[in-house]
Amino acid sequence: MKTEIISVGTELLVGQITNTNAQYLSRRLNDLGLDVYYQTTVGDNLNRLIDALKAAAARVDVILLSGGLGPTEDDLTREAVCRFADRPLVRDKVAEASVRAFFERLDRPMTDNNLRQAERPEGAHPLPNDIGLAIGWVLELPDGKIVMALPGPPRELQTMFERYGRPYLKARLPETKPLFSRYLHFAGIGESQLATRLEPFIQEQDDPTIALYASVGEVMVRLSTRAENEREAQIKLQPLMDAVIRLAPDFYYGEGESLTLSQILIDTLIRRGETLALVESCTGGLIADTLIGVPGASAVLRLGVIPYQTIMKAKVLGLDAEKLAEHGAVSTWTAERMAEAGRTLALSNWAVATTCVAGPTTQDGQPVGRAYIGLAHESGVYVHEHTVSGDRQTIRERIMRLALFELWQAILQTHQ
Amino acid sequence: MKTEIISVGTELLVGQITNTNAQYLSRRLNDLGLDVYYQTTVGDNLNRLIDALKAAAARVDVILLSGGLGPTEDDLTREAVCRFADRPLVRDKVAEASVRAFFERLDRPMTDNNLRQAERPEGAHPLPNDIGLAIGWVLELPDGKIVMALPGPPRELQTMFERYGRPYLKARLPETKPLFSRYLHFAGIGESQLATRLEPFIQEQDDPTIALYASVGEVMVRLSTRAENEREAQIKLQPLMDAVIRLAPDFYYGEGESLTLSQILIDTLIRRGETLALVESCTGGLIADTLIGVPGASAVLRLGVIPYQTIMKAKVLGLDAEKLAEHGAVSTWTAERMAEAGRTLALSNWAVATTCVAGPTTQDGQPVGRAYIGLAHESGVYVHEHTVSGDRQTIRERIMRLALFELWQAILQTHQ
Repeated sequence: MKTEIISVGTELLVGQITNTNAQYLSRRLNDLGLDVYYQTTVGDNLNRLIDALKAAAARVDVILLSGGLGPTEDDLTREAVCRFADRPLVRDKVAEASVRAFFERLDRPMTDNNLRQAERPEGAHPLPNDIGLAIGWVLELPDGKIVMALPGPPRELQTMFERYGRPYLKARLPETKPLFSRYLHFAGIGESQLATRLEPFIQEQDDPTIALYASVGEVMVRLSTRAENEREAQIKLQPLMDAVIRLAPDFYYGEGESLTLSQILIDTLIRRGETLALVESCTGGLIADTLIGVPGASAVLRLGVIPYQTIMKAKVLGLDAEKLAEHGAVSTWTAERMAEAGRTLALSNWAVATTCVAGPTTQDGQPVGRAYIGLAHESGVYVHEHTVSGDRQTIRERIMRLALFELWQAILQTHQ
Repeated sequence: MKTEIISVGTELLVGQITNTNAQYLSRRLNDLGLDVYYQTTVGDNLNRLIDALKAAAARVDVILLSGGLGPTEDDLTREAVCRFADRPLVRDKVAEASVRAFFERLDRPMTDNNLRQAERPEGAHPLPNDIGLAIGWVLELPDGKIVMALPGPPRELQTMFERYGRPYLKARLPETKPLFSRYLHFAGIGESQLATRLEPFIQEQDDPTIALYASVGEVMVRLSTRAENEREAQIKLQPLMDAVIRLAPDFYYGEGESLTLSQILIDTLIRRGETLALVESCTGGLIADTLIGVPGASAVLRLGVIPYQTIMKAKVLGLDAEKLAEHGAVSTWTAERMAEAGRTLALSNWAVATTCVAGPTTQDGQPVGRAYIGLAHESGVYVHEHTVSGDRQTIRERIMRLALFELWQAILQTHQ
């Protein structure tokens, strides 16, 4: 069923808050097998809200509203839906009792506007608010279309949707097959490069469908199909998965919706009982921060050193100051020594070192974006040179992703 | 002028990413004095995108599009606007040369689809992309309405909008009194705490208007008014600024739209000719990463050490292993020693150390969220204890902000 999410609130239109409700609802509706065609945001304005409802009703089957159910004059969702659907506004008796009980429990005087939160269009089914005052509700229109109103505060919205809204929608869904997806992750390959290789598949896509999602230094490909069950889905998805991975096998690192390279690295090293040290010059804490974001990182990451000023590379890591001056801070030699020194200092199995020119200006004759990533292990020390593009932050992020990817590849190639 | 933001991308409709672009643009457009009436999100679907453009053109004067300008078949914004406005698609010569030069510089083969990123509707003014490949553009319709297309990656969108999009819109604005704003920054105070104190001001707001923007560990208050000139604005804004600062003077750190605590710290230390070392346990690279994001940081930040495993606090920083075991890794004693050791190792004027329980589980009998921040300076070593709430990432971010704020306060109190 085609679905539209209408977020109500002037605070969204002035950029005061991020619309996380639209993302949350989109994800959960997709999980249910509903197709979200539009997300719309309107302010606390009665006529524009009614217009948005009319536009949505003309193009989708299910409308989810979030926000505008509070006690103030600005909260107009109830009134807008009543006008749009030509229904009177009524007070829900059960909800009214809850609101009154709430204020009695707190021994606080209840102002009358609070009872607005117990109102709903006549004929709408109330959705209880277990952690707040404003009730939600679902109204079915004569043509079978559904309008569901949920409160704006994210925790109230989520609790109400999970406990009452979602089951309601699920029961109303026509008998379709559920959606199954596979998420394939690639790193170290540009989005356009992978897109070019994928193009024939994307052009022919029908079932399963293919979508490509890129972020700095990473690409994820999603394959989706509807099927009776996991086994049928697997039979439909597996050949396409194999084919997509074969397009760039050297850059593929794994499958799973919430999989990340950091997660894989930490898990793999924990399994192997191995440890890691980081020596980050230009990435300066970015690799450490990313890895520490993964619970369990403390079993793996022993030490990080950020020898940000060149002299610190000599003083703390013991690099030969003369040779450092001769080769320059951004060089193969320095990356190699940094990695080795980190491994020695931390007594770790692995060490990764980064040194690069993040910009905005060139350094020691090296261009902006030039980077050296060093990897130290008992089997030896390896350095790769890269040149990446972007502003200061993007360069640092790309080098971080490349360093994680190279470490992961080196681990795979190393038998324990 | 009435404005609509259309975000393009199926990844938004399936809930894969949060729409931060809509928030960013809304805020910047409001700053310019444009009224955002609608935010709309559509997927990578040509017909629905054209329909969204038609609907927007029927109700607003300015349409801002974000996303759909990349190199793949899924990137349909160019084509949709061409069909909607009945214009042919042409290749921008300047942009084409940039794309080709980019691949030559990297010595990488360029696939043809990359040239799609240099295309625009005929007659549209190109907006350069200084940190990416896809150009943006502005098209003026025969009826005077404006369509501006910006790339989806947030950093590219922001850079392009600030450098080229915003000035373009500003020049096209009708002659109204310009909007003047003041941005007051607070750290170390909870958003709801500050909001409660601000409530009487917000309720009575008319001119100047007040808006509150909160992020983890930081709150910004914006005061705005329309005036003939800066002097008139200052007279209207100053009394309110003073009153707002008086609500939480100990937590106020400065005024300015793009001001950040990191920027203030780096600038202040550069001016004083002083240097800094970081010893980050639980924040693990987060403080370093934030400071290094500020150009010029290399003059100030000498060294970062992330002694993530407790044993490293002894081995690399020289902390007494027995006392460390006695006091525990998360303790006043350890934060104090870490800060001192960092200052000694880096020969810096200042050192900041963090140690905390980031969760998900308690540690050595200390609850999740307990933190110690150590500050070392020639005048002595100081440690503050905090208990903060949130998940792992939020706790780490709050401690990072608190550490920056405490360092800044300590610097202010120290005469050179």
